[in-house]
Amino acid sequence: MAHTIRDKEKLIARVRRIKGQIEGIERALAAEAPCGEVLRQVASVRGAMNGLTSELFDDHLRAHVLEAASDADREHGAQELMGIVRTYLK
Amino acid sequence: MAHTIRDKEKLIARVRRIKGQIEGIERALAAEAPCGEVLRQVASVRGAMNGLTSELFDDHLRAHVLEAASDADREHGAQELMGIVRTYLK
Amino acid sequence: MAHTIRDKEKLIARVRRIKGQIEGIERALAAEAPCGEVLRQVASVRGAMNGLTSELFDDHLRAHVLEAASDADREHGAQELMGIVRTYLK
Amino acid sequence: MAHTIRDKEKLIARVRRIKGQIEGIERALAAEAPCGEVLRQVASVRGAMNGLTSELFDDHLRAHVLEAASDADREHGAQELMGIVRTYLK
Repeated sequence: MAHTIRDKEKLIARVRRIKGQIEGIERALAAEAPCGEVLRQVASVRGAMNGLTSELFDDHLRAHVLEAASDADREHGAQELMGIVRTYLK
Repeated sequence: MAHTIRDKEKLIARVRRIKGQIEGIERALAAEAPCGEVLRQVASVRGAMNGLTSELFDDHLRAHVLEAASDADREHGAQELMGIVRTYLK
Repeated sequence: MAHTIRDKEKLIARVRRIKGQIEGIERALAAEAPCGEVLRQVASVRGAMNGLTSELFDDHLRAHVLEAASDADREHGAQELMGIVRTYLK
Repeated sequence: MAHTIRDKEKLIARVRRIKGQIEGIERALAAEAPCGEVLRQVASVRGAMNGLTSELFDDHLRAHVLEAASDADREHGAQELMGIVRTYLK
C-alpha cells in the first residue's frame, strides 16, 4: 500500500496512534468514565480516521492514477477511488 | 462542468429534484408539520446531495484526470479532487 | 415543527437560503461552470444542510424531550431522535 | 459510562473488535497489501465506529435525559448530546 518506505512508516505510526486512542476508550468504559467523556473520545477517533482516510486517498490517487504504469492500470485505480467515495457518500 | 450535453441535462434534472425536496421542507415548516417528519425530509435531501456529489466526483475524475489533455491538467484535476475529499473528511 | 413563531420564521429563512444555493448550482451547471467550482458549491450546501439539521435536532430535543408533556411523549420524542441519529451514522 | 454491567461488557467487547480491525490495518500496511484493500478496511472501521457512536448516543439519551434524576441533570445531559451532534454535523 504505502508507496515509499517513508510513507509506510508514517502511515503505520498514524494507525498505532489511533489504536492507542481506541485503547483509551476501552479503559474509559472499564473505569465507568462519564458518558460525555467517552462520546468525545469516540468523536476524536472519528477525526483521526478521517485524516488517515484522506491521506490514503491522496496516496492512492497519486500512485495508482497519476503515476499509473498504463491506461488500464489508471482506469482500475480510478474505479477503486469511485467505489470508496460511493461508500462514504452512501 | 457537465462533460456531454446528455450528462448536463441529467445533472440539472437531478439538482431540480433536490430543489423540489427543499421546497417540500419549506412547506412542511410553514404548515407546522411534525418535527420528526421535517427531520426525515432533511435526511432525505442529504441522501440526494450525497448521490449528486458522488456523480460529480466520478465525472470530474473521468474528465479532468483520466482523460486530461496533459500531465499538468491531470495533476490540477487530481489536486481539486483531493481538496474536495479533505472538505468532506474534515 | 417550529416551536415558536420566531423559530419558524428563522428556520424558513434558512431553508430559503439553501434553496438559493441549490439554484446557484443549477445555474452553474447550465452555464458549464468549471467542475471544481460546482463541487465547491455542493460542499457548501452540505455545510448549510448540516447546520439546519443541527438546529432542528436541538429544537426537537428541547420541545419533544426536555419539555414533553408526559413521560410517554418524552419516550416517543427520544425514539425519533435515535432513529434520525442512526440514519446519519449508517 | 455503561449504565448496567451487561451494557458495559457489551460495549467493551465492541471496542475490542474495533481494536482488532485497527490491528488488521496495521498488518496490511506492514505487509504492503494493495491500496484498495487498505481503504476498504478503513471504511469498515468507520462503519463499526458509527455503530458504536449510535449505541453510546442511545445509552446516553436514555440514562442522562429520559431517566435523569432531576430537571437540571436532564438539561445537562441534553446539552452534551447537542454538543456531540454539532461535532458530527460540522
